[in-house]
Amino acid sequence: MPKVNLEESLSQFDDLWRPKIIAELNDYKVQLVKVQGEWVWHKHQDTDELFLVIAGRLTMQMREGDVELAPGDLLVVPRGVDHCPRASEVCRLLLIEPLGTPNTGDVGGERTAPEERLGERPAS
Amino acid sequence: MPKVNLEESLSQFDDLWRPKIIAELNDYKVQLVKVQGEWVWHKHQDTDELFLVIAGRLTMQMREGDVELAPGDLLVVPRGVDHCPRASEVCRLLLIEPLGTPNTGDVGGERTAPEERLGERPAS
Repeated sequence: MPKVNLEESLSQFDDLWRPKIIAELNDYKVQLVKVQGEWVWHKHQDTDELFLVIAGRLTMQMREGDVELAPGDLLVVPRGVDHCPRASEVCRLLLIEPLGTPNTGDVGGERTAPEERLGERPAS
Repeated sequence: MPKVNLEESLSQFDDLWRPKIIAELNDYKVQLVKVQGEWVWHKHQDTDELFLVIAGRLTMQMREGDVELAPGDLLVVPRGVDHCPRASEVCRLLLIEPLGTPNTGDVGGERTAPEERLGERPAS
């Protein structure tokens, strides 16, 4: 059961919008991701999703209004809620959600990333 | 779905070994806790437990050896594994585990804390 340092892990990749699994908690994946620009509007019908900003700033766009997140801010987007993250500069995030949850939720498409563990190539 | 700032939330309490729930992720509790001294050896038979050090240092004692954790270090203690956290100075932690998981695991006793949401008195 090795420990994982967040900064050290974040230094190991630079691709955007491709979450890296750094640990598992039961059937949940604990991921780091770097994002910049705007994602796609989507929702997860069956699960909440946890976001914790490590560095940078993130705007979580939701139908009821935007939530502005700075380092140390944690937000749980509830299941079924449309959301679309946006960041003008690179933002570093910790993400937690069940294993198997796609990063594009119910929308899919070419931006859907395969599940990938840090330091390993994705399975597909 | 309000955001929660970790530092701001940590400034709202000073009691030790009493985790405060700051968010829920499906049926998991996201908690902050301050610890100092040594806890009790225990395990959680049915669940893993996630620790993320926000500030300070923590020694996670386990039968196979100690793991030293500094800020930004994340550790998942697997289900069924005996562990006993220890901190010589106050350490601030983020903890994630299923709702209903007791802080003393299978050991119980007077140090078992009721589940408590930040800013609310515990139910019992």
